[in-house]
Amino acid sequence: MPRPKVDPVTVKPISRFPVPVLGDLPQDIRERILKVQEKSGFVPNVFLALAHRPDEFRAFFAYHDALMEKPGGLTKAEREMIVVATSAANQCLYCVVAHGAILRIRAKSPLLADQVATNYRKADVTPKQRAMLDFAMKTAMRSEEVVDADFAGLEAAGFSQDDIWDIAAIAAFFAMSNRLANVMSIPPNDEFYALGRG
Amino acid sequence: MPRPKVDPVTVKPISRFPVPVLGDLPQDIRERILKVQEKSGFVPNVFLALAHRPDEFRAFFAYHDALMEKPGGLTKAEREMIVVATSAANQCLYCVVAHGAILRIRAKSPLLADQVATNYRKADVTPKQRAMLDFAMKTAMRSEEVVDADFAGLEAAGFSQDDIWDIAAIAAFFAMSNRLANVMSIPPNDEFYALGRG
Amino acid sequence: MPRPKVDPVTVKPISRFPVPVLGDLPQDIRERILKVQEKSGFVPNVFLALAHRPDEFRAFFAYHDALMEKPGGLTKAEREMIVVATSAANQCLYCVVAHGAILRIRAKSPLLADQVATNYRKADVTPKQRAMLDFAMKTAMRSEEVVDADFAGLEAAGFSQDDIWDIAAIAAFFAMSNRLANVMSIPPNDEFYALGRG
Amino acid sequence: MPRPKVDPVTVKPISRFPVPVLGDLPQDIRERILKVQEKSGFVPNVFLALAHRPDEFRAFFAYHDALMEKPGGLTKAEREMIVVATSAANQCLYCVVAHGAILRIRAKSPLLADQVATNYRKADVTPKQRAMLDFAMKTAMRSEEVVDADFAGLEAAGFSQDDIWDIAAIAAFFAMSNRLANVMSIPPNDEFYALGRG
Amino acid sequence: MPRPKVDPVTVKPISRFPVPVLGDLPQDIRERILKVQEKSGFVPNVFLALAHRPDEFRAFFAYHDALMEKPGGLTKAEREMIVVATSAANQCLYCVVAHGAILRIRAKSPLLADQVATNYRKADVTPKQRAMLDFAMKTAMRSEEVVDADFAGLEAAGFSQDDIWDIAAIAAFFAMSNRLANVMSIPPNDEFYALGRG
Amino acid sequence: MPRPKVDPVTVKPISRFPVPVLGDLPQDIRERILKVQEKSGFVPNVFLALAHRPDEFRAFFAYHDALMEKPGGLTKAEREMIVVATSAANQCLYCVVAHGAILRIRAKSPLLADQVATNYRKADVTPKQRAMLDFAMKTAMRSEEVVDADFAGLEAAGFSQDDIWDIAAIAAFFAMSNRLANVMSIPPNDEFYALGRG
Repeated sequence: MPRPKVDPVTVKPISRFPVPVLGDLPQDIRERILKVQEKSGFVPNVFLALAHRPDEFRAFFAYHDALMEKPGGLTKAEREMIVVATSAANQCLYCVVAHGAILRIRAKSPLLADQVATNYRKADVTPKQRAMLDFAMKTAMRSEEVVDADFAGLEAAGFSQDDIWDIAAIAAFFAMSNRLANVMSIPPNDEFYALGRG
Repeated sequence: MPRPKVDPVTVKPISRFPVPVLGDLPQDIRERILKVQEKSGFVPNVFLALAHRPDEFRAFFAYHDALMEKPGGLTKAEREMIVVATSAANQCLYCVVAHGAILRIRAKSPLLADQVATNYRKADVTPKQRAMLDFAMKTAMRSEEVVDADFAGLEAAGFSQDDIWDIAAIAAFFAMSNRLANVMSIPPNDEFYALGRG
Repeated sequence: MPRPKVDPVTVKPISRFPVPVLGDLPQDIRERILKVQEKSGFVPNVFLALAHRPDEFRAFFAYHDALMEKPGGLTKAEREMIVVATSAANQCLYCVVAHGAILRIRAKSPLLADQVATNYRKADVTPKQRAMLDFAMKTAMRSEEVVDADFAGLEAAGFSQDDIWDIAAIAAFFAMSNRLANVMSIPPNDEFYALGRG
Repeated sequence: MPRPKVDPVTVKPISRFPVPVLGDLPQDIRERILKVQEKSGFVPNVFLALAHRPDEFRAFFAYHDALMEKPGGLTKAEREMIVVATSAANQCLYCVVAHGAILRIRAKSPLLADQVATNYRKADVTPKQRAMLDFAMKTAMRSEEVVDADFAGLEAAGFSQDDIWDIAAIAAFFAMSNRLANVMSIPPNDEFYALGRG
Repeated sequence: MPRPKVDPVTVKPISRFPVPVLGDLPQDIRERILKVQEKSGFVPNVFLALAHRPDEFRAFFAYHDALMEKPGGLTKAEREMIVVATSAANQCLYCVVAHGAILRIRAKSPLLADQVATNYRKADVTPKQRAMLDFAMKTAMRSEEVVDADFAGLEAAGFSQDDIWDIAAIAAFFAMSNRLANVMSIPPNDEFYALGRG
Repeated sequence: MPRPKVDPVTVKPISRFPVPVLGDLPQDIRERILKVQEKSGFVPNVFLALAHRPDEFRAFFAYHDALMEKPGGLTKAEREMIVVATSAANQCLYCVVAHGAILRIRAKSPLLADQVATNYRKADVTPKQRAMLDFAMKTAMRSEEVVDADFAGLEAAGFSQDDIWDIAAIAAFFAMSNRLANVMSIPPNDEFYALGRG
């Protein structure tokens, strides 16, 4: 498949790799990007950075939506807590700032994202959410040590098997996402820093 | 979407989560699984374990194929080296054994996979491949420390920008995959252990 | 010396230890607290939490002022960068949020603090500031490995001997401060989260 | 404020930074140093090294005395155990050797300091002292993980809230002190090595 | 004692150090090597590499036999499990591959060695063997933290005091062996990779 | 072979395992112990603790002597530096205190052992000895990362190939010894603490 043309002059350096011009992208990708732009008022940098590889772009966002947009036992704010806590542990600037904004909006809390990012043990969350974040962090940082007892503990805290899958899968997906954004060195859009703080 | 029915009696315990019966899966997923069965002679456990969530299954394998099956500067054996080295660092039993088998076959070497899994610094690889594995391991284990100088080093070793993306993206994808397999506790199929050793 | 009386009913739980009522504090401490309240519009929680021990309070702030308020080669914004970077490494919620606010104000940048806190290697700082932060982090995390070559590198980057002392002393002072705030579990005042973002 | 004059020729290299001549120091600092010299028979190197910055010197020793000289539930020997254990973890040569000497004297034990420095788990201490050292080490090495349960455990072991503050504050103060001495590379005075071994 | 002559031309580079020619070795060492060759069909590289130092060779194998060949509560397969798990943690290519082969043979299992090497927590072992491996890994990786409670746990799992000594001594002996093989960079003989897989 | 009889009443608890009575030991072991007692004035605890297993005792001391007593490029004091530095990293109380004493005696320095144990980077050693200790520590703590460049560096510092073997072999032998003493919890004899300080 031909790669989209790249115009490094007119596009801000938002990646260590070439960044495509929107007009040159395949239609489905262009439409997805225009849709997020319409909703957010700007194009989050990760969309253009990943669009350098259309097939990977499609798979990435299909996976993202399957985890983050579907119905399920975890609220959308709780899913973002997982993203922010594990992305902070991986020191992923893009993910912490962008998903910090989403967490503030979804939790309707201007404070929670900074708490979860800095030290999730000190964040204003429920004990059940704390158990969720403990397991997400174990999945992110030392998944090789996960044992059956972890499942028993989560079930005792009130999580269903599907909830446990969601926690692990979100932590795992952002393990990938954090590494991509760190290697590409994608800066968060300036808009994200202030969103949801009002 | 309705979940596939699960029959834990007739299916081996290959995951901590419910495992669907092949006949109950959506047609596209069933066909993909039958195709891999036809090619390999058995169904790798990760296919059935992930099929518990059809949408995630589809995204996972679309992403996998976009990285592992496409043409590119890295040989298929080199891509498997990245998988085996980083999966060993994450102590993912399924990925080390299954992709170790694929590496033996693709590299036509019965020894290389065990070397890369145990200590990639001691494996019989070229200096360029060693540079590739160093960067893959940095992406896998401390991507927050990746700096521009890493790119300069890889380019000096002969890698193109697209090769560097491939190395990082494969390491990142298996960062996700390792965590999923560790949490699910998927055992490698017995067949994988011996493949390619002959 | 008699301890200040403590009124845990009328004072918010801002520490794991008893928190004194302002009116019961020794005059010099009360005046210092009133002065910061007048300037900031609120009493930062660390003042009341530390006032549980008047002598330690006095030494703490004398030390703080000797490092953070004195003239010197490092700008006040640069000193706050050191505080935010090392406090984030120590996961000190109070210090990251409170000094993040001060950094935003002193650097006149609404973005810099979140960058430095999440991954200082990706922050919009000069190469000289990056060298400063590298040394501050080495002092904070593995000071036992500091060698003469570190000094040579800092001098080559343009730092005087007094600047190097300042970098190390600020990192060391907040190594103490972070541990105190983590053990006391002092929450940042809500006001800090939004300061300097406008 | 004018800095004290420095005479690097007549003073031994006891710091990577300039070391002041006693006669040039402000009177209060000179008197403090003469007093410790009179008591110990020599001037501990940390006094002259820190006197390079009079204001920081004053705050440092005010803080030190507020923690180490005040009455309280911890014996002076126990406070020195905390200093030696945490300073060994930080590989601070000055603090381990100098406070090892003080610990030998205060505990009237020629053996205890070397035990605490090498592996405090093997030292001849009471179970209560072992709990004290476990918490001091947690404060020193991973204070971000301190939780309410740590306090409950210490209270069950017989410590008051003020004792817990003391343990944490001493560990935190020497987290600072260790980093300063490591960066300055202050050697212990030869006298310290043999003190209290008789 | 005169060193054995070395013929680097006719001997494969199986060590970073000189490797002796069999015919030049002291008779007892030559006989030991011929005996293992007769039994195995080849000379394991570690024998020739260590024969560079005859006295150390003799002590090494005397120690090895005292632990691995003697009667005792641990089966020979269990002793090899300890070797493989701890050698994998130390990333010792020679020991993982050579003792992986012996484990396959002694356990009559073609799969167990790869499981133990990759993630012993996921290996098909009994709960008692899992307790054995947990303690072996603690001895190998953080023996400074071993406490009396570890012994109580092992005794509750059914191990005698002599068994506990054996577990610790085998883990300790291979802590030495792994470091020697890593520094010498001894490659496993090609024969080991396939042994016991049939 | 019959085990030596054990009399736990008349023997001090110097190990977590049974400690034999001298009179019940095999003659060669008894003679070795009496010889060291004659030379030192006391029986170092490690001799009696290891004598619980006569065959392992014989191999241990044969190995020890082959490394520590033989002629070679490293002085006996330098060999003890390696022991003390690596044993401190492993927090082995017995080895640090006992070999610290031997180091003081062999180096005719009352200060060197405490320096090497606390932070070998700050010890009064030559640059060549510093290179020796750097490599010994790498062997002890992360031998899997040893590469050819380490050898080149040591040769540039003036070490022969046999010297390099000695450094690595001593670090490896005490990796074993430290783990044994930590698991057995052997206390140093009181006499060691003061030896060589005079």
